[in-house]
This record gives sequence, structure tokens and C-alpha cells, in this order.
Amino acid sequence: MNNWLNVADDHDFSEHNLPFGVFRSGGESHIGVAIGDHIIDLNIYASDGNLSETSFDASTLGEGTLNAFMDCGRPAHKELRIKLQSDLGNENSSLASGRDKYLVDRIGAEMVMPIEIGDYTDFYSSIEHATNVGKMFRPDNPLLPNWKHIPVGYHGRASSIVMSGTPIRRPKGQLMPPDADAPVFGPSKRMDFELEMAFVTCKGNALGDTISTADAEDHIFGMMVFNDWSARDIQKWEYVPLGPFLGKNFGSTISPWIVTMDALDPFRVTGPKQDPKPLEYLHCEKDHSFDIKLQVSLQPKDSESTIICRSNYKYMYWNLAQQLAHHTVNGCNVRTGDVMASGTISGPQKGSFGSMLEISWSGKEPITLKDGSTRTFIEDNDTIHMNAWCQKDGKRVGFGTCSGEILPSN
Amino acid sequence: MNNWLNVADDHDFSEHNLPFGVFRSGGESHIGVAIGDHIIDLNIYASDGNLSETSFDASTLGEGTLNAFMDCGRPAHKELRIKLQSDLGNENSSLASGRDKYLVDRIGAEMVMPIEIGDYTDFYSSIEHATNVGKMFRPDNPLLPNWKHIPVGYHGRASSIVMSGTPIRRPKGQLMPPDADAPVFGPSKRMDFELEMAFVTCKGNALGDTISTADAEDHIFGMMVFNDWSARDIQKWEYVPLGPFLGKNFGSTISPWIVTMDALDPFRVTGPKQDPKPLEYLHCEKDHSFDIKLQVSLQPKDSESTIICRSNYKYMYWNLAQQLAHHTVNGCNVRTGDVMASGTISGPQKGSFGSMLEISWSGKEPITLKDGSTRTFIEDNDTIHMNAWCQKDGKRVGFGTCSGEILPSN
Repeated sequence: MNNWLNVADDHDFSEHNLPFGVFRSGGESHIGVAIGDHIIDLNIYASDGNLSETSFDASTLGEGTLNAFMDCGRPAHKELRIKLQSDLGNENSSLASGRDKYLVDRIGAEMVMPIEIGDYTDFYSSIEHATNVGKMFRPDNPLLPNWKHIPVGYHGRASSIVMSGTPIRRPKGQLMPPDADAPVFGPSKRMDFELEMAFVTCKGNALGDTISTADAEDHIFGMMVFNDWSARDIQKWEYVPLGPFLGKNFGSTISPWIVTMDALDPFRVTGPKQDPKPLEYLHCEKDHSFDIKLQVSLQPKDSESTIICRSNYKYMYWNLAQQLAHHTVNGCNVRTGDVMASGTISGPQKGSFGSMLEISWSGKEPITLKDGSTRTFIEDNDTIHMNAWCQKDGKRVGFGTCSGEILPSN
Repeated sequence: MNNWLNVADDHDFSEHNLPFGVFRSGGESHIGVAIGDHIIDLNIYASDGNLSETSFDASTLGEGTLNAFMDCGRPAHKELRIKLQSDLGNENSSLASGRDKYLVDRIGAEMVMPIEIGDYTDFYSSIEHATNVGKMFRPDNPLLPNWKHIPVGYHGRASSIVMSGTPIRRPKGQLMPPDADAPVFGPSKRMDFELEMAFVTCKGNALGDTISTADAEDHIFGMMVFNDWSARDIQKWEYVPLGPFLGKNFGSTISPWIVTMDALDPFRVTGPKQDPKPLEYLHCEKDHSFDIKLQVSLQPKDSESTIICRSNYKYMYWNLAQQLAHHTVNGCNVRTGDVMASGTISGPQKGSFGSMLEISWSGKEPITLKDGSTRTFIEDNDTIHMNAWCQKDGKRVGFGTCSGEILPSN
């Protein structure tokens, strides 16, 4: 620990983390960095001239979203990180002497969407999830022939991605009852979450250009926890042949803080062995997997939470460098502020499955919560909390909680 | 005809049309309206105070995209249309007296992206196209069980939508040769166009709210021609189970002018009978189909064009009101500037098929061009031109050309 705020090394928002977010200050949106129970208000800190000697344009920190700052590139993000760590370690820094002005309470701060999202892509990169779902939706054919060759992904809806804490209304739609001749209309009866991580891009490529696996992390600002809410019954009836649509696009929830790739770097691990060996454009020279512990709790209204899943980002078969290289290998252009989610992150055994569909094995195996009630899917006024953190050698880097309550259909 | 420019009623850009676009003027992007061979520069026209008495905020016409003006709503668009028609019919109007200042040459003007696109959705609403493709991709199961119940759609890539005239590079990707054990990497060998129309939204709904078929057109600014370029071999190997991705997202091309719903209103027709009757939220009280004639030409490099498809937007089984009502029935939020494309618009007989996949019946039936060469799919340096127009009682409303050349893979 080397900070005058005495934030412990094993705090979610230790000095080893310094994640970025946007919070409401008066009527305005300010960019901030979390440290312990505080937020450094970078809008005010930068406008006071404390970053006048940086090599990047510090006025980008005066914007209401992170896009302009993200667009400055990885070296700028690293430079600011080093400067803040230096200030936090120096009791005579301008940050220390101006702490009444520059620090605000994190607990109770209203967090808002930190980025203006361009396009949103969802991958499907956990082999355990793909196999589990495959067994239920396509028993004869669980893991499709392309899965081990392609980091399968599809485009999702950017407009309905919301900040943690935003309630989500149970969607209505077409449902095909078993053995019926025609669909009926009504609220989804199989509301689900999907435990995912998402990365945010920070440097685009021109249409027609590609991004290699070696360069991929230069184009990634950081990561968030991502709940890809799903209505399984709507999805099941609609998704052949063009993929999920209304079963997904009624809402997705992100955690409030974006943890930078620099903060995640110490938690890099070797990913699963890929067999067969993928095509050359998907080869990686270094490790792009990260040991990020994941946990999901379900909290009924006015009741306590029950942990229903413990998983880890390191289980992902395809890593983020492969995802980005694949996404652009055809010349598709990525812009600063695009969001790419991992797909549901299930682990190998029961207890580590990242969706109710898998946890209750398509509704056949209800789980019992601490309050004695049972669940196969999410009920009205249930809240799903997702947490993610890295911890190693006593140092911790956390993402904060990604929460959302399901409201009754109206 | 009632205009001092003497633009004939059967001109693509007659006084009955008045479509909106954005063109380069000096170093800036200006909003304009096409009339005959001219563009009315609305940026200059509005900033001179000629719209000071309108009920909407005319300063929105000073922006570099149409989003802020579109956001003013359908009554504002209609009000401006009536004002411009009145000015064009009056030789003493400020538009007439200021014509040297307000009118620029349309021929040779550089058109740029007229809107900042939020989310892009592609539907699949032509029964002829769905049946044709189904026969080729899934011979046993051409029209899937959900097709006549759901206006099937999926999310596409907004970042790679480009203005007519922008070349598109042939994409590389994973291809699965017939009878091979593993995919190979290389340029697509089955490059295709898809003849589509797209609408642009102009008024959003909040997350959790819906838009009814009766209200749908209040949320639609206008329409464009849309070429949804497709790499059939990449698409075929990747698309099960989550839908098309790299086979589509390397580029889509729009026509330069957005024709408003007010201009299209006289060309409203009754759509195909829907049997079985769709669920109630998809019922329509009035006609939402339009008689828009469509034509596609293929032009090899330095050679003449050959018309390869004549189709019509009126063939669409699902109309735009049903598409928008379906898209939002689960509470998905639409924002001003979203683009929703129709899906390939094929007609019932040969000659009216809207893609090379159908025209050459998956490559089995080559077509012969005017220069004597043959095609099954698009070759390098071929340009695809798409045209769309309405004509009735001597009055014409055209969309201009949507063109794009396929460059060799690099």
C-alpha cells in the first residue's frame, strides 16, 4: 500500500485498480476514477491544470463520457494511471492538498453510462456454456461444427445497454407453447441472466483494415461486468435462422466502473488449450486470458441474496484478442466505444454455470434460495447481482457490482 | 408542375419528392433538399432567417447530420416540405430571389452520410426471398415455422454502413470447402448484393415502452435504397446458430437521399394477404405497403451496365409498421437515427430476384451480361447500381442511385 488515503491493497478499488467511470455531480456528468470509498473527480482535477504537462489532451476529461479520452489511446491511459498513482503516494501532491475539492464520496454517488456505445457485439466463447445450451436446444448436435474454428459472435442492440441499478421490465413477446400449432402472446416465463464480461474498444480501424491478435490489446480500453438479460422462450421461437433478437434486446446491464487493461495485466493467465489449432489469424503470441473471479447472487424482494454461481473469466475458450481479430478479419471497422461481450461464462462443473437455463437445466432442476423459495428462472422483483474481481499476492482489482431488478410486465 | 425551376413532374427529384441529404460545401457538411438538378442548401437558407416563422427549431438545419431535424418529428418535416413547395411555386419567394445563394448543383455534389446511425436492424420480410434462400440453405425446410408469425429480423453492424459511391473491399474469412474436414482462410468467392429498402427512425420510445402499428409511421422519417453486401460462403459456415456476422458486417451501402414518408404517401398500396392472420399486435388498420419500383444493374469495369433485377417494395410480406411494432413489443428502445432494412426484396418470378444467390440459383445458373461475360457472383471491380422510384399519374418520386464497386481483396 502506498497511498495517503490508506486504501488497503485488497480493496476492490485499491491503488492497483483505478477504474474509470462517469458520475453525476450537480447537474453534470463528470469522469472519475475510483479509489477506495472515494472518486477522483477528473473533470475538476484536470480543469485546474494538474494534467497540463501530460502528453495527451487532458481536456478530454472534461467530457460527459469517456469516448474522447479513450480515443487518446493506451499510452495516454497508462500515463494518467501512473500520474494518479504517483499523486496518491505523495502526501504533498496537488491531489492530496486539493483533496476536499477533488475527492467525492463513492458510496452513494450516482453512476451513469460511462461511454457512448457505438456497436455492440456479443460472442459465445465459453465452451462449457455452448455445450450446455447446445444439449438443451439441439440435443443431437450440442457443439456445432464451426464452434472450435470460429469465435462465434453476433450483433446485439446498443440502445438498450443500461447502467447497473436500472430496473428491467419483463418483456412480452411471441411464445410457442409445447405441442401448440401457433404462437401465443404474453410475458416471458423463462427470464434469465447471462454472466458475461465485456471489453470496450479505444482505437478504431478503417473499413477494410484488420486488427491482428498481436495488436488487439492496443485497441482495448478496459473491461466491465455485463449481464445479457435473456428471455429464453422468446429466443427459442425466434432465433432460427438469423439468431437472437427480441429474446435479448430488451436490456443489458453493465457494471459502473471500467477496469483498464493495465490494471488487469498482472492477472494474465494461459487460456485453455485450443484443439484443433485455429487458423493462423487466430494464433496468439502471448496470453490474453485473465483470472477474473465471478459471482452471481439472486435476491428476492425484501430478502437476502443467495449466491447461485461462482465462475471465472479464465474458462473462456476464445480470448479477447482472438475475438477482436476475428471481428475485423473481413475488414469490419471498429470505433472507439464499441462494446464486445464474452458470452455467458460457465465453468466446468455445477455451481459454475452462468445462466438460470443451465443452473436449473432448462427448468427441470429448481434451486432453493436462502429464504426457502425455489427458482427455475427469474421471478418478478428478483434482483440479480454480479461481482467480479482479481486477487493475487494480496493485491485486489474489483469491478463493483452489476445489479438489476426484473419488474413485472406491464 | 408548379415550380419556377421547371422541374418536370416525372423527374426523380420533382417537387413531389423533396428528399433530404447531406452534401459537402467547402469544408463543411450542409443539409440539403434535392430539386431537379439542384440542391437547396438548407443550412444557408435557414441561417438567413427564411424559416424563422416555423414552429420547429430551424437551427437544427445547421447541423452536419439530419438527426436533430429528424428529432423534431413528423409535423416539422411536413411543415418544411409545405414551405419549400410553396417557395418553389412562387417566383417572388425568398428562395427564388436568393437562388444564386441557396441553390447548388446536384450533379457532381459530394454526398456524405446524412445521419448518425444508432442501431441497425435487418429484417427478412420478403416471402419470395426467404423461400428461395431456404430452398438452397435448408432444402428440407425452406420456410421455417416462425416465418409467417414473426417479421424475422436480426441486428447488424452500424459502423460499416457507407454512402453510395464508397468502394467495398472483398472480405476475407473462413470458408468451408465442400467435403473438407476443416475451414480454409481466403477471400470470399461468393460475393453478393442484397436489394433492400431501409427506413430511418425519427422519434424514439423509452426502454420498456412499445410502438403500435398505428403509431409506427410517426416514428419514421423516410426511406433509402440499401445494399446489404453479403459474402455467402463466409455466411454459410458461420451463421448457425447465432445468425449472420462477418458474412455481412464488412459493408452496407445507402443511397444519398432520404425520401420522406410524406413524399411516399401517394404510392401507398395494399400489401400481400397474410395467412395465417398474425397476432393482434401485428394487425394494421391501414395500408403500410408502398409501390416502389426497384432495379439492379451490374457494371463490369470500363463496360456498360446490364439490368439483372426488376423488383418492387410492394412484394414485402411484412410491412414497416409491423416491423417497428415487432421490434419494440418487448420494450426495446428505438432512437432517432436508427436504420431498419427490409431484407432482400425478391419478386415472385425469375428476373425479380434481389440477390446473385437467387439470380444464379446458388451459382448453378450463370447469367450473361451485355459485354458477353457471365456471372454467378460479383467479380472484382464490378459495380452494383440500385435504383428505386415511385411513379403514378405522371408524378415521380425517385431515390437516386445506390452504387458500390467491389475492390479486390488485399
